[in-house]
Amino acid sequence: MVRVYVAGVGMTRIGRHYEKGLLDLAAEAAWRAIDEAGGVVPDAVVVGNMMSSSLQGQDSLGAYIAASIGLKGRPAFKVEAACGSGGAAVYTGVSLVASGMADSVLVIGVEKMTDFPTAVVTEALAQAADAEYELFYGATFVGLNAMLMRLYMEKYGVSRDEMSAWPVLMHRNGAVNPYAQVRREITVEDVARSQVVADPVRLLDSSPIGDGAAAVLLVSEDLAGRLPEKPVVAITGAGMSVDTVELSNRESLDEIRAAKEAAEKALGMAGLEPSSLDVVEIHDAFTINAYLLLEALRLAPKGEAARLVAQGRFHPGDKPTANPSGGLKSRGHPVGATGVYQVAEVAMQLRGDFPGVKVPDAEHGLALNMGGDGSTVTVHVLTRI
Amino acid sequence: MVRVYVAGVGMTRIGRHYEKGLLDLAAEAAWRAIDEAGGVVPDAVVVGNMMSSSLQGQDSLGAYIAASIGLKGRPAFKVEAACGSGGAAVYTGVSLVASGMADSVLVIGVEKMTDFPTAVVTEALAQAADAEYELFYGATFVGLNAMLMRLYMEKYGVSRDEMSAWPVLMHRNGAVNPYAQVRREITVEDVARSQVVADPVRLLDSSPIGDGAAAVLLVSEDLAGRLPEKPVVAITGAGMSVDTVELSNRESLDEIRAAKEAAEKALGMAGLEPSSLDVVEIHDAFTINAYLLLEALRLAPKGEAARLVAQGRFHPGDKPTANPSGGLKSRGHPVGATGVYQVAEVAMQLRGDFPGVKVPDAEHGLALNMGGDGSTVTVHVLTRI
Repeated sequence: MVRVYVAGVGMTRIGRHYEKGLLDLAAEAAWRAIDEAGGVVPDAVVVGNMMSSSLQGQDSLGAYIAASIGLKGRPAFKVEAACGSGGAAVYTGVSLVASGMADSVLVIGVEKMTDFPTAVVTEALAQAADAEYELFYGATFVGLNAMLMRLYMEKYGVSRDEMSAWPVLMHRNGAVNPYAQVRREITVEDVARSQVVADPVRLLDSSPIGDGAAAVLLVSEDLAGRLPEKPVVAITGAGMSVDTVELSNRESLDEIRAAKEAAEKALGMAGLEPSSLDVVEIHDAFTINAYLLLEALRLAPKGEAARLVAQGRFHPGDKPTANPSGGLKSRGHPVGATGVYQVAEVAMQLRGDFPGVKVPDAEHGLALNMGGDGSTVTVHVLTRI
Repeated sequence: MVRVYVAGVGMTRIGRHYEKGLLDLAAEAAWRAIDEAGGVVPDAVVVGNMMSSSLQGQDSLGAYIAASIGLKGRPAFKVEAACGSGGAAVYTGVSLVASGMADSVLVIGVEKMTDFPTAVVTEALAQAADAEYELFYGATFVGLNAMLMRLYMEKYGVSRDEMSAWPVLMHRNGAVNPYAQVRREITVEDVARSQVVADPVRLLDSSPIGDGAAAVLLVSEDLAGRLPEKPVVAITGAGMSVDTVELSNRESLDEIRAAKEAAEKALGMAGLEPSSLDVVEIHDAFTINAYLLLEALRLAPKGEAARLVAQGRFHPGDKPTANPSGGLKSRGHPVGATGVYQVAEVAMQLRGDFPGVKVPDAEHGLALNMGGDGSTVTVHVLTRI
């Protein structure tokens, strides 16, 4: 694959932006990314979003956003892969540049969730699960994750307090990230005392509901060389894989097969091993997801991830540092935007200008975005050139 | 752009398939396309669909369909651009092959609309318009098209009976297409007597509501050469453009600017003029769309398209023949699938095996798929190699 550069990134703080609509958020992120790239007018726009159809009653989101921010007259469309929509949008953007069909592609991830009652948002989120084989029988998305968490804890003998190592680390990282939604530290005791959402998942095991938008401007090698400042970060690997949406047909419940496959593809394309990574941003919508993904990435032996985190592995200063942003848990999880936040954050780490927890001299980074409970996983490897 | 071949196509008859779900339809089209290509297992799956979120309550449609038809373990995602979702999915598939990220991509367009009351479907369809600036004020999608039709008729002095030339031609073509939803001929008098939907749009100016799925298997030049039978049709041009979703901000209401731009791009890429085309499949969701699109394609002078059709232009035997399938009006319009049907139909015309009205010795064809009233337009040019 030809090299695709990240010429600019932009993001809004994640939060309850009652005063801003979908378009305001998208525009804010988009124009920051374009500004960073010295005002490059993108040849194409790809939007990552899950819920505009359910919540805003708005389809045609590619044209809607592109034209509204002054970018009509070029290709624009929406890519949807539930909570993995942002990563899938980046993947599509990479292919548009790599194919030569566009010299520059603006990928915007955006989600606006807080104008609605929580029940409405929960129902919209549940569309990431299987409508006929799961939701029809009363399963919710958090309920499915509770079953996965219970299975993992029982099978590998992991205690409640060991499980809590991850959210505690995430809140410590996110507390200093100016873009994070929840910026306060928590303790293992706070997690244990927090409300049960779906036993054993507690409130502090769960990512918050928030609005946000992130954008990355991808450019070809040729255009990168013609910019006032040549970008220093390139996407050197892109992998994507899917598995059944319904958990009942998975070969294994404690292994995220699509994550393994997507990571192998992306790392292989970049010619790297997991041990080469300095920083990773992974999809911790719930605590259990983080551990399963660290194991799928071969960064921890099966069943050991929680204990390793409790012992200090993946903390700032370790290689790789995991989720210096605070992850979905603390930075937040504006669903269809999350995968774009992750790529933007890893790019900033490699450039050395991420405004929160820094990973000094990071050369290789990885962003992993997941749809559903591993039904879609996209992995991008980024390298400082 | 490197050449992308169409190695196989598949489609279901469009209709009220009460006995088949979204997955059944998608699988039927997908496996036909794969069979035609000699059993090539695609590297990636792109799904074009508009309404699964609103109607089936199912997101993550890429993984959902890919895994259900036995294609997990590879990239899969959904592309949405309202009624232009199918064309946008083909465009994305082309870029995945052209970038080298996949050697073979299965593009599936699918929509399942008939398990719901018409009011529910109408509301879901209306999401192709602008939620805040159009729908909030009571506009429906057919109402917006009625205004465009009225404007056109008044401005260019086109009579009701002249307008009717298009639906009459479409029903004549569609009557012999075994995949068409409505297979009966109609007269100018039938159109004039049919029920008013939103004055001046009558029932026989409008495409029917139906279920359907179509698939095209795209392969690289390298893979094409290794197939048992080398494909004879290639996509030689791909163009896409967007305009504002809301009509109130358009520069002109009787010119579909995105169609002009997308066609210029695609024809330019293929090195062709509109006059070189032997066959076109265009997006006639309503009668007015057909005329505006023929004019945007520079196949008819402004305001003259209806009179030309009434005089026999674009009929079978003419160059180009327009919509030998019967178009959205008679073949049908399973919304997110339509753009894939068009590409499959043009490919069959170029191969010489379309089972309805044939365009003999066709060498160059064009498929134009539109989202909303021209907010998104995708154009593909196909050539017999």
